[in-house]
Amino acid sequence: MLSVTLIRCNNPSNERVSKKLLPSSEKDTIRDPLPSWNDVESKKKILDFVKSVTNKASFVREEDRIAVFDNDGTLWTEQPVYTQLMFAIDRVKMLAPSHPEWKKTQPFKSLLQGDLRKTMAGGQKAITEIIMATHSGITTEEFAQTVKGWIDTARHPNFKRPYTKCVYQPMLELLSYLRANGFKTFVVSGGGVEFMRPWTEKIYGIPTEQIIGSSIKTRYEIQDGKPALIRTSKVDFIDDKEGKPTGINEHIGKRPILAFGNSDGDFQMLEWTTSVKTPTLGLIVHHDDADREFAYDRQSPIGTLDRGLDDAAEHGWIIVSMKNDWKIIFPD
Amino acid sequence: MLSVTLIRCNNPSNERVSKKLLPSSEKDTIRDPLPSWNDVESKKKILDFVKSVTNKASFVREEDRIAVFDNDGTLWTEQPVYTQLMFAIDRVKMLAPSHPEWKKTQPFKSLLQGDLRKTMAGGQKAITEIIMATHSGITTEEFAQTVKGWIDTARHPNFKRPYTKCVYQPMLELLSYLRANGFKTFVVSGGGVEFMRPWTEKIYGIPTEQIIGSSIKTRYEIQDGKPALIRTSKVDFIDDKEGKPTGINEHIGKRPILAFGNSDGDFQMLEWTTSVKTPTLGLIVHHDDADREFAYDRQSPIGTLDRGLDDAAEHGWIIVSMKNDWKIIFPD
Repeated sequence: MLSVTLIRCNNPSNERVSKKLLPSSEKDTIRDPLPSWNDVESKKKILDFVKSVTNKASFVREEDRIAVFDNDGTLWTEQPVYTQLMFAIDRVKMLAPSHPEWKKTQPFKSLLQGDLRKTMAGGQKAITEIIMATHSGITTEEFAQTVKGWIDTARHPNFKRPYTKCVYQPMLELLSYLRANGFKTFVVSGGGVEFMRPWTEKIYGIPTEQIIGSSIKTRYEIQDGKPALIRTSKVDFIDDKEGKPTGINEHIGKRPILAFGNSDGDFQMLEWTTSVKTPTLGLIVHHDDADREFAYDRQSPIGTLDRGLDDAAEHGWIIVSMKNDWKIIFPD
Repeated sequence: MLSVTLIRCNNPSNERVSKKLLPSSEKDTIRDPLPSWNDVESKKKILDFVKSVTNKASFVREEDRIAVFDNDGTLWTEQPVYTQLMFAIDRVKMLAPSHPEWKKTQPFKSLLQGDLRKTMAGGQKAITEIIMATHSGITTEEFAQTVKGWIDTARHPNFKRPYTKCVYQPMLELLSYLRANGFKTFVVSGGGVEFMRPWTEKIYGIPTEQIIGSSIKTRYEIQDGKPALIRTSKVDFIDDKEGKPTGINEHIGKRPILAFGNSDGDFQMLEWTTSVKTPTLGLIVHHDDADREFAYDRQSPIGTLDRGLDDAAEHGWIIVSMKNDWKIIFPD
C-alpha cells in the first residue's frame, strides 16, 4: 500500500509527516489550501471562517455561500493605470487612421502625441471620452474578439509580462479554496463587464455569468438578416461605490457572506455584506509593497483607500498586507 | 445481488425490463427523463438535441450549455391575468387603509370597487401605476418577505390551487433533464426579477442569480446605522422583446443554445439564440388546451403569439402543443 507523505507547506522545517498516522482533524491542515499566504492573522481568519460556515453551528447552505471580489487592485494589479485604460489607449492609436479629427481634438491629440499626463489632466471627462470612442459602435462579439486579441499580446509596462499574469497568486488560491468549499465566486468590478468576460473564465475560473461590472447599453438590431447586439455610447450602469450593492442585488439577488476589495470604491460592498448578525467576512488588500508591486492608499487617485483604512476595525474587516501576508505576488 | 428493474415509462404495456441485461445505449432510454411528454416530434427533437451536444460531433462544453426559459406562460400559467398583477391587486387592497386617496382616483378606485374590467381599461398606464404603488418604497428584503407571504397563501382563481402549483410539470421535467446533462438553466422573464426570486429556487430549482427579469432601480442608503436597498419607483430595465437578448448579454455574457418561450415577447430571445450555425434549439409553448388550461394565441392581449406562429417554421422553432404534446399540465 502506498504511504502518502506530504510536505507541511507552512512548516519552515519542511518536516515530512505521514498523513495516515495523523488524526483526521490534523489531516485537514496538512495540504495547505493557501500556500502563498504567510501564517498570519488574515490567513487564520479566512480558514476559520470557511470552516465555520461549512461545519457545525454557523453552517450556511451551499446556495448561500456567495463570495464577491473586486477586480482592479484586488485580483490583479491596477497601477500605474487601470488595465482597461491601457487597452483604450492602445485602441485609440489603432483606430487613429480612421479618425483624422483626433489629431486636433483633446483628449485624443495629447494621447496620440504620447503625452499621457496631459491626457489625464482632462480628468473623468477625458477618460469617459476615450472609453466611449474605443468601446462602442461595434457588436458585442466584435468587442470580445478585440479584447481577446489585445489581452493575449499586451504587456504590463513595469512587470513586462501579460496582464493576465499580473493577477495575484494568493487570490487565485483563495478563489479555488472557496469553490472547493461550495462557494460561488463572483467578480464585482467598476471595470467594464465586457472587458472582463473574454478572459476571466480562463484566468479566474469564474464563468461569464458570475462577472458583474460597469456596462454600456446595447441595441438589438438585424444586420444582413442576422441579429446583432450593438454597443452604444450610452452608459447603462456604473458598478462602483453604492453601485456595487445595487449591482449585487440586481445580478445575484442574495447578500454575499464574503467580500474582498482594496479601495473605497468597495466600501459599500463590504458594508452591505458584513452588516448582518450571521457570520460574514470582509477583507481589504492593502497595497504596501513598493518592492514587489506598488505602495499606495489614501493619496492615490487610482485605488484610493482612505475611509476603508479608518473604518475597517470598527466593521471587523481584515486588512491584508500585501507585503507581510503574501509570500509571492504573481504566478510564476 | 439486487436485480435492478425499471418501468419503461413511455411503453404503454408497462413491460418490465432488467436494466442489467440491456446494452448500454438501450439503458439510457429506459428511464424516460420526460415522462409527462407524449412521444411526439417535440420530445424527440429535445432528446436528440441534448444527445447531440453532450456527445460526439456537435459537442458543446458544459460552460456553454446555457438554456433560457421565459416564465409567464412558459413555466407557469399566465391567464386570466399575469400572477404578478394578481399580487399587485391584492396588495392594493391591503395597502388601501393607508391610502384614503385611492378611493377617489383611478386606477385604484375601480380596482377597490371590484371592477377589474374598468381598471384594465386604463391599459399599460394603469398597470404601471398599480405596480409602482405596490412594489416600491420598501427595502428589497421587506419586498421579498411580502412576496413570500403572498405566494404561500394566494390561490389561482380558476384552478383553486397555489400559483406555485400552476407550474407546468412537463417543463419541470425538462429543466431537471437539462441540468442532469450539464446545462445551466436561466429564467428570462418580462416579470419583475424580485417578484420571482423569493420562490423560483424552491419551485424550479434555479438559483436567484440565474433569474433575469424586469427591474426597478434600488437606492443604497443607511437606515438606523444599517445599510438597506430601497426599491424606488423608477424603472431600471424591461426584460421583454429586444430587452431579452440585451438582458441575456448583460447577465449571462454568452449566447444560449436553447431558448423556450410562448409569446411574441420571446421572439427576439429565440431569434438571438438560434441565429448561429452551430446546433441550437428554439421552442414555443402553444396554449391550445382550453379543457386543461387555456386556449389563446394571436388575439390574446396576454401572451400574444402571432409573429411567432407565422415565422416558427422558417426559423426551425418547434411548436409545442400543450394539448397534444403534454400528458399532464400541472404537478399532482
